Amino acid sequence: MQAEGSPPAGAEPTAPRPRRRGRAGRAAVSGGPPAGAAPVPRRRIPSYELLDDQGLQRLENHADWILDEIGVEFRGDDEALELFAGAGARIERLPPDKNGVSAGRVRFEPGLARHLCATAPSSFEMHGRDGRVVPIGGDHVVLSPAYGPPFVSDLDRGRRYATLEDFENFVKLTWSTPWLHHSGGTVCEPVDVPVNKRHLDMVHAHLRYSAKPFMGSVTAPQRAADSIEMARIVFEAERGPEFLDDHCVIQGNINVNSPLVWDDVMSGALKTYARANQGCVISPFIIGGAMGPVTQPALIAQAHAEAMTGIALSQLVRPGSPMVYGNFLTTMNLKSGAPTFGTPESVLATYAIGQLARRLGLPLRCGAHYTASKVCDGQAMSESADAMNAGLLAGTNYVIHAAGWLEGGLVMSYEKFMMDLDRCAQLHHLLGGLVLDHNQLAADAYREAGPGVAFLGTAHTLANVTTANYNSPLADTNSFEQWTDDGSLDAARRANAQWKQALADYEPPPLAPAVDLALQSFIVDRKRSMPDAWY
Amino acid sequence: MQAEGSPPAGAEPTAPRPRRRGRAGRAAVSGGPPAGAAPVPRRRIPSYELLDDQGLQRLENHADWILDEIGVEFRGDDEALELFAGAGARIERLPPDKNGVSAGRVRFEPGLARHLCATAPSSFEMHGRDGRVVPIGGDHVVLSPAYGPPFVSDLDRGRRYATLEDFENFVKLTWSTPWLHHSGGTVCEPVDVPVNKRHLDMVHAHLRYSAKPFMGSVTAPQRAADSIEMARIVFEAERGPEFLDDHCVIQGNINVNSPLVWDDVMSGALKTYARANQGCVISPFIIGGAMGPVTQPALIAQAHAEAMTGIALSQLVRPGSPMVYGNFLTTMNLKSGAPTFGTPESVLATYAIGQLARRLGLPLRCGAHYTASKVCDGQAMSESADAMNAGLLAGTNYVIHAAGWLEGGLVMSYEKFMMDLDRCAQLHHLLGGLVLDHNQLAADAYREAGPGVAFLGTAHTLANVTTANYNSPLADTNSFEQWTDDGSLDAARRANAQWKQALADYEPPPLAPAVDLALQSFIVDRKRSMPDAWY
Repeated sequence: MQAEGSPPAGAEPTAPRPRRRGRAGRAAVSGGPPAGAAPVPRRRIPSYELLDDQGLQRLENHADWILDEIGVEFRGDDEALELFAGAGARIERLPPDKNGVSAGRVRFEPGLARHLCATAPSSFEMHGRDGRVVPIGGDHVVLSPAYGPPFVSDLDRGRRYATLEDFENFVKLTWSTPWLHHSGGTVCEPVDVPVNKRHLDMVHAHLRYSAKPFMGSVTAPQRAADSIEMARIVFEAERGPEFLDDHCVIQGNINVNSPLVWDDVMSGALKTYARANQGCVISPFIIGGAMGPVTQPALIAQAHAEAMTGIALSQLVRPGSPMVYGNFLTTMNLKSGAPTFGTPESVLATYAIGQLARRLGLPLRCGAHYTASKVCDGQAMSESADAMNAGLLAGTNYVIHAAGWLEGGLVMSYEKFMMDLDRCAQLHHLLGGLVLDHNQLAADAYREAGPGVAFLGTAHTLANVTTANYNSPLADTNSFEQWTDDGSLDAARRANAQWKQALADYEPPPLAPAVDLALQSFIVDRKRSMPDAWY
Repeated sequence: MQAEGSPPAGAEPTAPRPRRRGRAGRAAVSGGPPAGAAPVPRRRIPSYELLDDQGLQRLENHADWILDEIGVEFRGDDEALELFAGAGARIERLPPDKNGVSAGRVRFEPGLARHLCATAPSSFEMHGRDGRVVPIGGDHVVLSPAYGPPFVSDLDRGRRYATLEDFENFVKLTWSTPWLHHSGGTVCEPVDVPVNKRHLDMVHAHLRYSAKPFMGSVTAPQRAADSIEMARIVFEAERGPEFLDDHCVIQGNINVNSPLVWDDVMSGALKTYARANQGCVISPFIIGGAMGPVTQPALIAQAHAEAMTGIALSQLVRPGSPMVYGNFLTTMNLKSGAPTFGTPESVLATYAIGQLARRLGLPLRCGAHYTASKVCDGQAMSESADAMNAGLLAGTNYVIHAAGWLEGGLVMSYEKFMMDLDRCAQLHHLLGGLVLDHNQLAADAYREAGPGVAFLGTAHTLANVTTANYNSPLADTNSFEQWTDDGSLDAARRANAQWKQALADYEPPPLAPAVDLALQSFIVDRKRSMPDAWY
C-alpha cells in the first residue's frame, strides 16, 4: 500500500544506518527504501496565527495569575516540593489526606515557571536502535499511533478487549508504514497481561517488532525505570556503552491530573525519565467543564500553566532533559457530559496553544485524529480531520493519536488505523507547501496546449505525472459503475482489506538473538520478582 | 434540529423584515426566530497566509504572462471581442470552426485585465423577497447548497435520476436550515422536465419555497433572461417597482470553459446578468492535468487569469455589476484520470487563491464539502472536511456546494446534505473566534474550584453552559452501550432520520397568491412558446 504514495516534498531522509544483516539491511545498502523507513516531514508552510501579540500576552498573563494566586498541588512528592522551594516558588504544606498522603500547594511569581522551563531544549533528537534519527521540534512533524485504548475493534470481530497480540499487531502496522515515525507507547492496553507486568511485554514488543523510537511505562516510577532499563539493554548492545546517557531513545507520556494537580505516579514517572536524560511529553488532560472552565481562553491559560509546571520540574531534576510541551484539550457535550472532539471550540484552542508553545520555544505536541464516534463513519473522519488539521496549522511537532483512535480513545480500531494513515500521508504532502519554480509554473505547457486543448498529453504533464499528486491507496475515485463492480465497498471495508495485507506483509527489523535473549531474561526476572497484580 | 445549535458568536442578525401574514411573520414579530432565518456569520478569525508577497507577485506575473502571450479565446461572441478591443486588448480573429462559429483570441498587456476588474464592487448585498439582506464579501461568509447533480440518493431509495420533486425538497431543506444563507441554483437537475423548460420550474421553486437569494439559469442567454424576468415579477410586486435595477436578487453561476476559453453560452449568460445589474459567480473549472497543467502554481495562475477575464467582461458590459471571484480548482487521479477532492494539492491551491482574491479586492468563492466518494462514509467526510477547512481559512466569502455534494458532484445526497449542515453549523462557531474577556478567562471559576476540583458545578459553568459550545444534533457522543441501545446507527443513518423530519417540519415563507399566479402565468406562456427540447 505505502508504495502508492510518492515521496512527499520537504521530507528529509532520516534513513537508518545501513546494516549488514537482514532484509532491511540489504534494502538500505541497495538504495531502496528499507522496511520501516519513515522520513520525518518538514514544515514548508507557515503556522496559522489566530491571535495577535496582545491576545497572547493576555493568555500568558492569565496563566501566570493562575500559577501565582491559585497555584498547583503536588501530592505525595516531597522531593518535588523541595525542588520548587529551592527554585523560589512559594510552598504551602497541606495536611495529609485520609490515606496519609502529604501534599503541598506550589505558587509561582509571574514569570518564574517560564524561567524554569528555559533550560529545556527547543528541539532534540530521538534515536532508533537501527540508527535512525527522529528530530523532535523545529520544523519537523513526527506522527505516532493512538495511545491507551483498552478495547480494539475490527469489522470481522467487532469491539473487544485488547490483548498482547493486538498490541503487537499495532506495533507491526506502525513499523510497516512510512507515515508514522514513532512507534507510540500503549498502542492498546494488553488486558490479558497483569497490570504490574504489562509494561515489560509492551516495551519488549516495541523493541522487538519495531526500530522506531517509542514510549515506555508511566503507571508507576518503577515501571518507568524498567522501561528505561530494557531500552538500555538493547541500545548499549547495538549502539554502544552509555549511549542512553546522552541520547534520547525512550519517552514517557505524562498527563497532568488537571485541574492543577500532580500526583506522585505522574510526577514520579516524569522524574524517572528526566533523571535518565530521557524524554517526556507533558500534556495537561483537560475536558472543558470538568477539569477546567467551559470557556476556551481559560482552558488555554490553564493548560499553559500546567504544562509549564511539569517542564519546570523536569528541568529541576535534570536541566536540559528533552521535553515536549503537550496538550490534550477538548470539549464536552454540556447536556450529557460526554467528551467531544474536533469541535470548533477545541480547534480554536489548538491554534492558540500552538502560538503559546512557539513563544515558549519548545517542541509542541497537539493535533490528532480524534473522534467520539463508535464506528469508522462520516462522523469519525469529519471530527478527525478537523482536529488534525487544527494541530497541523497550529504548528504541531509531535502527534500522539495520529492513527487508530475511535470512541473517545476507548477503542483502537484496525480500520480507523488505515484510514488515518491515508490522512497522515496527505499531511506529509501538505507540509511540503507550494514550490514556485520554472517547472511548477509550466509556461511551456501553455505554449504546447493553449486555449481549449487538454493538458494530459503535454510533455510537462508526462514529466510530472508520477510526482505531482499524492495518490491515495484508500480513497475510491472510480465511477459509480466501477465501484459497484468492485463490491460497493465503503472506506472502512476497503481499510479492512488493507490492514490484513499490511500484517501479512510485515517483516521485523533485525534484532541480534543475544540481545533479544537478554531482554527476555530481564523480563522473566522481573515477572518472577512480584505476584500478578491487576492495578 | 436547528434549535440545538446555540447562536454562533459573531453572527449578525440579518433577519427578514417583520411581515404581517403567515407563521414566519408572527414569529418575527413575537421575537422568535422566523422560519428560514439564517444570519450570515462574520469572520472574526484571520485568513491563512500561505505565500509571501514575493510568491504572490510571481503568481500574478505568471497570470499576466498567460493573458499576454497565450491569451483567452472567445467563441461565437463578437460583442465580447469588440468590448475587449475597445478596452485596449489585442484581438486575433480566428477562422470559423466547422460549425461556422467565429472566434477570437484576446490578449492583454500585463495589468490590463486587473485594471478592467477595478469597477467591480469589493462587496455587495443580495436581497431576499422577504426583505432579508445577504452580504457578499468583506468579512461575511455565505453558504449555499450543492449545484448541478443529475442524480440524487438516499438510504431508502438509493441512487437515481433527480426529479423536480427532489429539486423542491432541497430548496425546502435549504430554506429550513439556519446554516445556509442562499438557496443555491440547480440544487439538482430535474431531469423529468425538458431541458429548455427546466429553468422555469427551478426558478419558480426558489421563489415559491424559499425567500433566500438564489441563482438562475446559465444554460442559454434566453434562459438567464427568463430567470431574471421571473425574479422581477416577484420583487417588483413585493419590494417595489424597479427594485431589480439597483438591487442584486439573482445570480448566474458562470464557469470558464477552461483552459482559457469562453463559449457564447457562458459569456452570453454572464452578459445577460451583468446587463440587468445582477450578479455572477465567475469560476474557472479546472481539474489539474485536464484543463490545466498538473502542477498547482500553474493552475493557480491560470485560474486567476481566467477569473479576471470574466470579471473584466462583466464590467465592460455594466461597470459596477456585482461579481464574485470564483474558483473550482481540483486534482485528478493521475493513473485513472478521475477527479479527486480535498487533496493536499488542492488545499494548498485554495490557500493561494484566497490570497490572490484579497489582493484583487473582490468577494471570493472557494471551499466546499467536496468528495469523490459514492457513499456518506469516512472518505466522504474526510475529503469534505479538508476541502471546506481550506476554503474557510483561505478567506472564502461565498461557498457553493456547502451541502449535499457526493460522487464528484454527480449526486445530491439527502443524508450528505444533513451531515454537511452539521459541519456548516460548526464553521459558524469557528468563524466567531476567541473572545478574551473577563467572562471567558473565568478567574472566579478558579477561585471557586481550585486544584483537583471539578468545574461542572461552578457558577461560571452554570452561567455559560448553554452558550459555551456548539452542540451537534448529528454527532453521537454517547457511550457505546447507549449507542448500541439506540440501534447502532452510523452518522448516515442518523442523517436519514433528520432530513425526513426536516421535510415534515417544513413551512413555506408566505408568497402573495396574486404574485404566484403571475409567476405561473409567465411559466405557462413560456412553456407554450416552444416545443420540448432535451438539450
